[in-house]
Amino acid sequence: MSVTEFTKRLLTYRLSLIHLKEIGLEDVYSHLLARETGYSAALVRKDFSRINVKGKRRGGYEIDAILEAIDEYFGDDKVNKVVLVGMGNIGRAIAQYKDFEKQNIRIVAAFDIDPAKQRKKFTIPVYNLDDCLTTIDKNEIDAAIIAVPAISAQMVCDRLIRCGIKGILNFAPVNLKVPDDVYVSNVSLSDELRRVIYHATQKTD
Amino acid sequence: MSVTEFTKRLLTYRLSLIHLKEIGLEDVYSHLLARETGYSAALVRKDFSRINVKGKRRGGYEIDAILEAIDEYFGDDKVNKVVLVGMGNIGRAIAQYKDFEKQNIRIVAAFDIDPAKQRKKFTIPVYNLDDCLTTIDKNEIDAAIIAVPAISAQMVCDRLIRCGIKGILNFAPVNLKVPDDVYVSNVSLSDELRRVIYHATQKTD
Repeated sequence: MSVTEFTKRLLTYRLSLIHLKEIGLEDVYSHLLARETGYSAALVRKDFSRINVKGKRRGGYEIDAILEAIDEYFGDDKVNKVVLVGMGNIGRAIAQYKDFEKQNIRIVAAFDIDPAKQRKKFTIPVYNLDDCLTTIDKNEIDAAIIAVPAISAQMVCDRLIRCGIKGILNFAPVNLKVPDDVYVSNVSLSDELRRVIYHATQKTD
Repeated sequence: MSVTEFTKRLLTYRLSLIHLKEIGLEDVYSHLLARETGYSAALVRKDFSRINVKGKRRGGYEIDAILEAIDEYFGDDKVNKVVLVGMGNIGRAIAQYKDFEKQNIRIVAAFDIDPAKQRKKFTIPVYNLDDCLTTIDKNEIDAAIIAVPAISAQMVCDRLIRCGIKGILNFAPVNLKVPDDVYVSNVSLSDELRRVIYHATQKTD
């Protein structure tokens, strides 16, 4: 849990730093980044020291140095290859999501049980799910995105794990069960939206 | 933060309970639900007492009673109306997402700056962003989904807040800045996927 929160913070810093760089800044103080991200300045400094980013003598940090350290932490010198299962509405949107490329993530292939989707032209090749082992093996892929209906999600998940997948980003509205050596992140759009609606109503009252 | 974690757990319980009900269970023990959701049995029981769900005399809980209490907590006796801004790939996938309806969430309208998208046939009406105030006012909407490119997200966010929106589910890869009385949930697909890749690589090593 602690590692997860830490990696989450690093990615939040990264996004803010890219933004600050875009508006022309070269250096940043921990309290500015704290204000941008909502974390405390002390936590920001602690996190930076954890990824070996040192402050400048006169105070503050070099933005490029932090970004480099964060990318190094995530192993971003290389392209991260993933596969996608399910080419429904969500799957197709993910397949076309432009931000992945900027982040050195490449969806090398998608899988779907529908032969019509396998014939259709997409930006990435779509294969039959039966062929997933070959693709995963050949490309040495560790992570997969599941965007299939709830009813088939666990079956797809089990299958991916048998192919050696160790990390899953799951969009199906199901709590997937996985062995301890597999990491799952569930993105439940309905749950997220319900939380937002709940808090919005509280704030209105 | 605490309230957010609590509401998150309730939605996780809800999903597992629906699943358990589907496979034929009527009652559930806290330790079974703990195993299903990954939380401790003690926490499950504490959360249930917080929403006034009482255990049965012989132990265990009635699944329907818990579901009812959770839905009551989220005010799910009524339909929750939201608006969507941005009808690109992600926006269109969200507009067609079937699970929302099951959860009593209805996207009543979408907004896009592209006149072509406003003319196109979707399952929900698409209007010019300039018309958002009327729709939000007329339908008494508190929550919105932002699915526009990063560059226009803050502008759209500010505009929605001026229209009275108090909760935002944001898919743009930007940390939105909002006043204290507005709740934002950022769904960064790239960040989520990067975390999954990171953990998958650790588990493989």
